[in-house]
Amino acid sequence: MIGLGALGGSVAWQARLAGIPRVWGFSPDPAEAASALRSAAITHAADAPAAAVRAADLVVLAAPPGANLSLLDQLTSWLRPGALVTDVTSVKLAVVRRAEAAGLGARFAGSHPLAGTHASGFSAARTDLLRGAVVYVTPTSDPAGAQVAREVMNFWSDVMGAEPVLMDAEAHDRQLAWTSHLPQAAASILASVLARQVGASFGTGARDTTRLAASSPAMWSELFALNREAVLAALAELESELETLRSHLASGDDAAVRALLERARSWRSGFTP
Amino acid sequence: MIGLGALGGSVAWQARLAGIPRVWGFSPDPAEAASALRSAAITHAADAPAAAVRAADLVVLAAPPGANLSLLDQLTSWLRPGALVTDVTSVKLAVVRRAEAAGLGARFAGSHPLAGTHASGFSAARTDLLRGAVVYVTPTSDPAGAQVAREVMNFWSDVMGAEPVLMDAEAHDRQLAWTSHLPQAAASILASVLARQVGASFGTGARDTTRLAASSPAMWSELFALNREAVLAALAELESELETLRSHLASGDDAAVRALLERARSWRSGFTP
Repeated sequence: MIGLGALGGSVAWQARLAGIPRVWGFSPDPAEAASALRSAAITHAADAPAAAVRAADLVVLAAPPGANLSLLDQLTSWLRPGALVTDVTSVKLAVVRRAEAAGLGARFAGSHPLAGTHASGFSAARTDLLRGAVVYVTPTSDPAGAQVAREVMNFWSDVMGAEPVLMDAEAHDRQLAWTSHLPQAAASILASVLARQVGASFGTGARDTTRLAASSPAMWSELFALNREAVLAALAELESELETLRSHLASGDDAAVRALLERARSWRSGFTP
Repeated sequence: MIGLGALGGSVAWQARLAGIPRVWGFSPDPAEAASALRSAAITHAADAPAAAVRAADLVVLAAPPGANLSLLDQLTSWLRPGALVTDVTSVKLAVVRRAEAAGLGARFAGSHPLAGTHASGFSAARTDLLRGAVVYVTPTSDPAGAQVAREVMNFWSDVMGAEPVLMDAEAHDRQLAWTSHLPQAAASILASVLARQVGASFGTGARDTTRLAASSPAMWSELFALNREAVLAALAELESELETLRSHLASGDDAAVRALLERARSWRSGFTP
């Protein structure tokens, strides 16, 4: 396990609790690795990524997005014969392409667990974060890619108790631009604007709507950059919808304002609160 | 109590539990009034607003915004000598002006409890919804307006256990355009756009960010219309911020994207999740 934050730490912890006898973990922060060791989320703390990778049958990259990409370039010479590699980055096309370019096409499948949290660090790791979570698994284009993806899916279902879903990396990124990256961007621009209202009181509505803005800016600016075109398309559509609402309200067309709100409610009512 | 929905029903219920001996309630939906009566949230169900108003020392208007405005025009002839009137509409300038125009300047103070819920109807009423809630109280410009506002504030603090705050109606509406109306609009436009992603899976992030979109479109289109200029100004600033994010991302200025996300997080981290 490379990276022992909220997600990596939870994967390591659940692997141990599911009976995996040895889990090597690396964190660039020695205190975080020590904390994971004390919690028995890992059995061995590696002092460098190479040491953890050399010990592993399955390598899981759970570092920040850019670091995961760089690690793919370095991994090849460290891997045991037969070892497989996956990652938990929430964009997939750039990762899959980088793995292929690094000669890992027959040993890699990308993963994206829908188990995010706006909190970070091992202190936010949980022993059930992955349980029941959808995990998208994206194969490489290598002839062996489909078989590797099946094995990685087995890890998510059998060891983590998650629900893996096979998906093409490009389709994944296009979909996530809407379902995840756009809500993140919307929460952040709203929070950025509300921050200028110094001294005002905010109710639960404003807090819920901006909760995602507390997520890591470093991680999200990397993710937006790695999914630039799809995120730009989603942002343009949000901007167009905002412009529509504003022009209806400006022209006094309150029936059209209400119709837009009705469409939004009709969709949102399909979920639990 | 005119209106026995989530907010009106809660105010009635808490008044009864605080020892107010008689609470008359009117709902246009007889089943809702019967439900409030069964729960002992009211002691008398009125068959028309006039009957409830004629019995009251304090009239609380908790109907939809437009209905509250119309009721202010009709109330004068029904009121007992010495009876006071307030409302719970979440815009205040239009309500205060309408009360003044109806000759209620010396008997009315507006109220806005920050105790909203996206659920509606008496089934969403609670016996503690107002407890600890900030309630903005906005006086009329009548010479007696300040004294009426004090008495209404006493009702919110002493009977409801809420925290009344005196505020000018115009300043209230300008502030609420940012703190409440803009988050509502942002959640609705995001939901309206996401609704087009048929068949996609949405995580907790997308759900939290759009939770407000489940609120009543009828009520919110009225509120936006009653606070049109201030809401338009807030929407324009959100649109400008969205455009800023989009242009940073489009031009590859990822440091500027990150700086925007940092400003948003810095503000949002000041609140509990």
